[in-house]
Amino acid sequence: MSRTPVNRLVDGQSLDQPFRLADKQIRVNRQGGKYLLLKLADRTGTIVAMLWNADDSDYEKIDRGDYVHVLGRTQVHQGTLQIILTGIDPLTDKDEIDPADFDSFDAGAADAALGSIQNILGSLNNDSLRQLGEVFLRDESFLQQLRVASAAVTNHHAYPGGLLRHTADLMEMCQAIGPRYDRVDVDLLLMGAFLHDLGKIHEISPGGELSYTDRGQLVGHIVIGVQMLGTAIAKLEADTGQPFPSELRMQLEHLIVSHHGQLEFGSPRLPATIEAVLLHHVDNLDAKLTSYLSMIESDLTNNENWTNYQPSIGRKLWKKS
Amino acid sequence: MSRTPVNRLVDGQSLDQPFRLADKQIRVNRQGGKYLLLKLADRTGTIVAMLWNADDSDYEKIDRGDYVHVLGRTQVHQGTLQIILTGIDPLTDKDEIDPADFDSFDAGAADAALGSIQNILGSLNNDSLRQLGEVFLRDESFLQQLRVASAAVTNHHAYPGGLLRHTADLMEMCQAIGPRYDRVDVDLLLMGAFLHDLGKIHEISPGGELSYTDRGQLVGHIVIGVQMLGTAIAKLEADTGQPFPSELRMQLEHLIVSHHGQLEFGSPRLPATIEAVLLHHVDNLDAKLTSYLSMIESDLTNNENWTNYQPSIGRKLWKKS
Amino acid sequence: MSRTPVNRLVDGQSLDQPFRLADKQIRVNRQGGKYLLLKLADRTGTIVAMLWNADDSDYEKIDRGDYVHVLGRTQVHQGTLQIILTGIDPLTDKDEIDPADFDSFDAGAADAALGSIQNILGSLNNDSLRQLGEVFLRDESFLQQLRVASAAVTNHHAYPGGLLRHTADLMEMCQAIGPRYDRVDVDLLLMGAFLHDLGKIHEISPGGELSYTDRGQLVGHIVIGVQMLGTAIAKLEADTGQPFPSELRMQLEHLIVSHHGQLEFGSPRLPATIEAVLLHHVDNLDAKLTSYLSMIESDLTNNENWTNYQPSIGRKLWKKS
Amino acid sequence: MSRTPVNRLVDGQSLDQPFRLADKQIRVNRQGGKYLLLKLADRTGTIVAMLWNADDSDYEKIDRGDYVHVLGRTQVHQGTLQIILTGIDPLTDKDEIDPADFDSFDAGAADAALGSIQNILGSLNNDSLRQLGEVFLRDESFLQQLRVASAAVTNHHAYPGGLLRHTADLMEMCQAIGPRYDRVDVDLLLMGAFLHDLGKIHEISPGGELSYTDRGQLVGHIVIGVQMLGTAIAKLEADTGQPFPSELRMQLEHLIVSHHGQLEFGSPRLPATIEAVLLHHVDNLDAKLTSYLSMIESDLTNNENWTNYQPSIGRKLWKKS
Amino acid sequence: MSRTPVNRLVDGQSLDQPFRLADKQIRVNRQGGKYLLLKLADRTGTIVAMLWNADDSDYEKIDRGDYVHVLGRTQVHQGTLQIILTGIDPLTDKDEIDPADFDSFDAGAADAALGSIQNILGSLNNDSLRQLGEVFLRDESFLQQLRVASAAVTNHHAYPGGLLRHTADLMEMCQAIGPRYDRVDVDLLLMGAFLHDLGKIHEISPGGELSYTDRGQLVGHIVIGVQMLGTAIAKLEADTGQPFPSELRMQLEHLIVSHHGQLEFGSPRLPATIEAVLLHHVDNLDAKLTSYLSMIESDLTNNENWTNYQPSIGRKLWKKS
Amino acid sequence: MSRTPVNRLVDGQSLDQPFRLADKQIRVNRQGGKYLLLKLADRTGTIVAMLWNADDSDYEKIDRGDYVHVLGRTQVHQGTLQIILTGIDPLTDKDEIDPADFDSFDAGAADAALGSIQNILGSLNNDSLRQLGEVFLRDESFLQQLRVASAAVTNHHAYPGGLLRHTADLMEMCQAIGPRYDRVDVDLLLMGAFLHDLGKIHEISPGGELSYTDRGQLVGHIVIGVQMLGTAIAKLEADTGQPFPSELRMQLEHLIVSHHGQLEFGSPRLPATIEAVLLHHVDNLDAKLTSYLSMIESDLTNNENWTNYQPSIGRKLWKKS
Repeated sequence: MSRTPVNRLVDGQSLDQPFRLADKQIRVNRQGGKYLLLKLADRTGTIVAMLWNADDSDYEKIDRGDYVHVLGRTQVHQGTLQIILTGIDPLTDKDEIDPADFDSFDAGAADAALGSIQNILGSLNNDSLRQLGEVFLRDESFLQQLRVASAAVTNHHAYPGGLLRHTADLMEMCQAIGPRYDRVDVDLLLMGAFLHDLGKIHEISPGGELSYTDRGQLVGHIVIGVQMLGTAIAKLEADTGQPFPSELRMQLEHLIVSHHGQLEFGSPRLPATIEAVLLHHVDNLDAKLTSYLSMIESDLTNNENWTNYQPSIGRKLWKKS
Repeated sequence: MSRTPVNRLVDGQSLDQPFRLADKQIRVNRQGGKYLLLKLADRTGTIVAMLWNADDSDYEKIDRGDYVHVLGRTQVHQGTLQIILTGIDPLTDKDEIDPADFDSFDAGAADAALGSIQNILGSLNNDSLRQLGEVFLRDESFLQQLRVASAAVTNHHAYPGGLLRHTADLMEMCQAIGPRYDRVDVDLLLMGAFLHDLGKIHEISPGGELSYTDRGQLVGHIVIGVQMLGTAIAKLEADTGQPFPSELRMQLEHLIVSHHGQLEFGSPRLPATIEAVLLHHVDNLDAKLTSYLSMIESDLTNNENWTNYQPSIGRKLWKKS
Repeated sequence: MSRTPVNRLVDGQSLDQPFRLADKQIRVNRQGGKYLLLKLADRTGTIVAMLWNADDSDYEKIDRGDYVHVLGRTQVHQGTLQIILTGIDPLTDKDEIDPADFDSFDAGAADAALGSIQNILGSLNNDSLRQLGEVFLRDESFLQQLRVASAAVTNHHAYPGGLLRHTADLMEMCQAIGPRYDRVDVDLLLMGAFLHDLGKIHEISPGGELSYTDRGQLVGHIVIGVQMLGTAIAKLEADTGQPFPSELRMQLEHLIVSHHGQLEFGSPRLPATIEAVLLHHVDNLDAKLTSYLSMIESDLTNNENWTNYQPSIGRKLWKKS
Repeated sequence: MSRTPVNRLVDGQSLDQPFRLADKQIRVNRQGGKYLLLKLADRTGTIVAMLWNADDSDYEKIDRGDYVHVLGRTQVHQGTLQIILTGIDPLTDKDEIDPADFDSFDAGAADAALGSIQNILGSLNNDSLRQLGEVFLRDESFLQQLRVASAAVTNHHAYPGGLLRHTADLMEMCQAIGPRYDRVDVDLLLMGAFLHDLGKIHEISPGGELSYTDRGQLVGHIVIGVQMLGTAIAKLEADTGQPFPSELRMQLEHLIVSHHGQLEFGSPRLPATIEAVLLHHVDNLDAKLTSYLSMIESDLTNNENWTNYQPSIGRKLWKKS
Repeated sequence: MSRTPVNRLVDGQSLDQPFRLADKQIRVNRQGGKYLLLKLADRTGTIVAMLWNADDSDYEKIDRGDYVHVLGRTQVHQGTLQIILTGIDPLTDKDEIDPADFDSFDAGAADAALGSIQNILGSLNNDSLRQLGEVFLRDESFLQQLRVASAAVTNHHAYPGGLLRHTADLMEMCQAIGPRYDRVDVDLLLMGAFLHDLGKIHEISPGGELSYTDRGQLVGHIVIGVQMLGTAIAKLEADTGQPFPSELRMQLEHLIVSHHGQLEFGSPRLPATIEAVLLHHVDNLDAKLTSYLSMIESDLTNNENWTNYQPSIGRKLWKKS
Repeated sequence: MSRTPVNRLVDGQSLDQPFRLADKQIRVNRQGGKYLLLKLADRTGTIVAMLWNADDSDYEKIDRGDYVHVLGRTQVHQGTLQIILTGIDPLTDKDEIDPADFDSFDAGAADAALGSIQNILGSLNNDSLRQLGEVFLRDESFLQQLRVASAAVTNHHAYPGGLLRHTADLMEMCQAIGPRYDRVDVDLLLMGAFLHDLGKIHEISPGGELSYTDRGQLVGHIVIGVQMLGTAIAKLEADTGQPFPSELRMQLEHLIVSHHGQLEFGSPRLPATIEAVLLHHVDNLDAKLTSYLSMIESDLTNNENWTNYQPSIGRKLWKKS
């Protein structure tokens, strides 16, 4: 059964299809009746939906972050499209949804990305770095967390699996570009690309509606990432009985702390090694491209050539392709 | 005969080797005697040199931008290394120098870069773009200018052939990265990479000591580049008798005018197409990497790990590799 | 019949007067009935209006940008004044409106501004510049476009004829101020004032609701202006068989590309000639004064002394005069 | 006898002409001999001069700020032109100098500027403002100070009489431009133009080498100007026995406190009346034009087209006229 | 009777308690009936309230800034809590309210703060400063104004008595910290702390709904404060027949004009004396702490750990204590 | 024997007194003779000194960072005061110097500061925090490092013992100010004040001429501080067998990572707890006051009222006290 994505819905359209439930609230109107105020989502955007004459059991039976199947009709209210629901239920048949519609990696895509990471880390020539990679890759609990982690709460890669995809993409691009420049230690660069955003595993709480953890807000993924590296190195040193090379450790820490490229973007140090400069630029390129593509794809205007004005970047984007 | 590059010179060293003459002045000292105050250069930096007891014929026989052979000895004066010359002559035996020492492309490297550009432009699927490329590549006078053009007066790619190298590198990286992202018209991106800095041919006057032309300072390479594109399109339209697609022309103009990425860096428009966003980021990556590598390579401090503080980027760079 | 301008409307006022229709939409309410959601405008501002129980023919008979005659009554809804319509029709009697109420130049004002421009350009002593002016002034199609062009989409001079008025005002002020300063080439300054914003003819699409063209957004009026100058010079060179002086051309191009005064305002070059510095400051003075006056005149608050806070300039303006 | 201005001096030139003495120091060389280190100035710039083998009487007989007559020869030392003196004496024959060469108003120019100010203030229609002007213009001590005050320590109008010239120019331009715009109270604007910089009389200490007073540095000319206005109003109220209109007083104070246009330029309030907006823009225009012209005129490079890079404005200026 | 503060109200709660009336409007609904749209406030925040079926006498009997007693019930409307009133009356029994709930100083707190100020000023060793303090403290009209003045319109200390509290707190902290640092003239510092914000007495109009006066907007509290100091010094000089030390006066004026610490925050001069630097930092510390505490206390979210995102400071605040 | 501090030296003064040797170089002059180029320092500043006709043994016998005794005479050269030495030797009699002259804490001052820190940490009511303090205070090696650590390489507290003094001062001020504000957990604040700059122990290499370590430049004291806290907590947990409260740990980490107050000053997170906001402001106050005082005390101008222009803070400072 074909499904209309959020950014293709039009006024007056009947709906009988699945969404992800991003938020739910129960409200009382002026006459004292209850209704549900919901947010429904897929990878292309979010839309408000209302279920009039609801009761508490309607509210209880659906959970934030779950897939739901809805019946209803779209309607413009005060210039914004919304959905008036006639029914909503938890999704029972998981085959009904295509994970790609919900910006989640399916298992296959996650396996491919993880495979690429494993290949690259396994092929490093520097023994200390390759062994360090193994510490992470042998840790099943870490791998579980990595597979479901988001790389952001909004904008680019803001979905379960987003961190995995961003990490794999970055490592592959570093593999292609790194050797083009003099003085680049490609092994060091690749391990930096692997490590740079791992702190996001603990910065963003996984689950339906993405949000920052207390630790994420108080400490931030950059410092958490350095702590995770410290734990892994301690484990490796315990395993091997050998100290990890101290200069190499500082280089890896530097790649993590400087990857935002500028102090005002939250890096406590500016990139000062050639690998850190390169990592920052490739990371920035991937973040910007992915973010702009997402603005284009989730744009709701009727204009064929241009998106709405995007305040975060101070411009409209050309969307005709 | 082995040659010591500028950034490897040490105090009290005898010299008998070639340099490029970056500048020359004749001066009178307090006793009324004349001396030459020169700047000698290679790809790793610039050093001041003095020839005491000179006369006008010494000044006349050497020209700015030429290679010279010098005899003399280094000396620290007020904390800075300089050379006290005992002789200086125009270079007679061109075999004495290795062009790579002077950051000039040799003919072979230029041929390779130009060949890469020709291959890429020749393989474009879009007929209008491929034909537009041919207009440029068939223009012998243009090719001559491109081979000797610099991409900057200081910093990265500031040497004859620098524009050719930067253009070829960018096109190759766009070829590798472009197809990784959705919605990218790779042909359009590649033609944009070819065009983006062509205006520098008329912005920077070629020759020994690089400087901006009047037109470069008054109009700038971005607007000059749009004018060059206009001329080429007019030629193509005259050749084919067909109008060049107007939307495609605007897209190309947009790639040129927006490639600095931000208004404060001299782009009159912000990148608004996905190809313009990508081109800006790859251009920026290449400019920054090349510039930072050049700072590392031309650093003169004795410190083994760190360059001097670099005011233009607000930091020292790690130079141990 | 007297007409109440938008910024003088009060709650509970009966209306029987003309407006310009800035926008129209047809909507369906919760009961399934249709209604029109309109924006009505004059030079003092814009107000929302609703026609309940409308049908498709109501929607079809009026066009965006046209004058309409309305019947209805004002009403405050959620803190904002709006109009509940009882009737709306296209304006049949053009005498009913005073163009001055709608910020359009009437024919007389346009003729006067154009006459002033023609006088100034015709009196230039520099032959090349005076002939260049004639190329523009003989081009009937250009003059047609100039008479209806706006100088902006919002803020100052955002109405048909606005570009003409801004251009004439600037030239007159340059004529008064230019000779007060040393080294100013007044002919060059005046031609620069004439040219500086001509690119707006193609940047902004004419018609009822002002908006940017694709070319305007992708290329911008500064680069378009340089292209228009190039076309005019080519025409002049073809007419006279003489090359236009190349340094003079660069000076004119510089006046266009630098007139915003700072890179972050979209000028790819900073003003570097004394004429460019002067042109920028007079342009800025006229833009700011006109814009602030427009904020004062369209202010809707009841406060007698102060306008509302104006976010674009970070302050309230004193409106008591 | 013709005189070479500072910015036209060349290497190896004999000198027998007057300068203004901007600074003097007596120094001891390594051999224990004394010499004078002087700064000589005219309106086009400043140059260092040395008198070898000097004694204390040489030092005593000349005073900072005085005119001196010198004998000597120019010489380039470490890339900078300086003068080696053979004689220096106080100027005895005042006819030897042309005040225009030293950027001082001569008496005639001062009279003309003051006359223009008097005419404008005397013609104001608003009684309170015209009477306020008379309070200032009847105060002989104030007029004395105004005639010799500078409008700046460096840059534009940095010479005795500079404040008078800047004030008169501003008032004349306000008279020409003010009436072009709606809602402008021209009398108020003209009095604001008269008052806006008067605090500089107490901010800058008059005399040869310009410098800030303690009060200038601690309080600044904007607040001092408000204090001067307060004193004048108190005098007027005592004279007339009538209170000065309180709203008019606030408007005048606002014109003074906001005339720098932005907080970061030292205005504690942003221009919020239409007169304040206009005054700021005309003031800025005159300051910028005069300052840029002074950079061009005092430029020392041999380049015929461009000045040196001017760090304070981030660009070179075109000097060919 | 216990009272629920605004930031503790929950959906569906019956109310029978006092508020301060921050604003009132009378409106007409679509059926022509009238209703009151009110804003009710206490120290923890503001909430909208509606009285349906109101008439003009309901509107007349209550005044902005007064305390009112209300009956009604809370309700969520479009995601925001509001109150549907069944009754509202002016408060008749002043004992019903606790001034602390309304962020007003009660008389006792005001007396304590004023007493602290009097003690400190009375203990100054510098005779001129102690006498200057007496001029202020003997002025009954000034003391009346000081007791009811606010220190801001929004954010920190935005309530009658706020200026008194901020002034006393600052003076006490300066007394504790001042002597810790070398070269600090503690008497001067303390008088500066007393004076620094006095201009707010005339910048902000006292009364229920805080707003800026015309003089406040046109001139600002910094310049007004200098004027108040001038008046007090004139009074002191008249009393004593002695001139106030002029350098001391400049120092005091400097403390007032520079206390915002940066030009862009409205100080026309940067702090240049050690007392001015210290005063700025202690003032800033108190302003920021008080402002952040107020954001935490008036936060309405259900989240136990974090406030809502606070746009003015670009972050959420931790509110769990 | 009385000693003249660096900032009190005048031209032509005979010297026979100790300095600290900040730097030494051996140079060859144009005639081939060797000389020493030295930097001599005390707490008030640094001065260049030359020993003509030196040999290698002169160079070898003195070490950077050591105290030296010098004979010689001051002399102005090119506008700057320097010393021409006639003799220089390592200091043999340590009693000859007063540590206070060299901005080093003497043992007594260090004991007092450390005692204050111990008292405050020992008096914390929160058991976890008090025990954590004990982990640090029992670590003799840590205490040794703390006693000699600098808090900066330049500016405030840039001397051995500077970190100890800054830490003690901050803790004492937090003790005085913390309890004045609501919601402040004073124990948490005091532990944060103790921890906030500890990373500087490893960021700055101790010894005569202060400089950053590789780890300091690559990782920075903020992240190092978090690592030091992690190590101490691990030790405490091993000692007690109890987990350290995780929320308390995040709060401490937040105090460290946010204490610079703004991202652009190198804090990867903005202060978000009330203790972090307060710590930042007190830290900033102490840093600024100490730094400005140091500029005043080391100022070399003859002007009695004002220091030289200080580029780092964009102003002159008033130095008359």
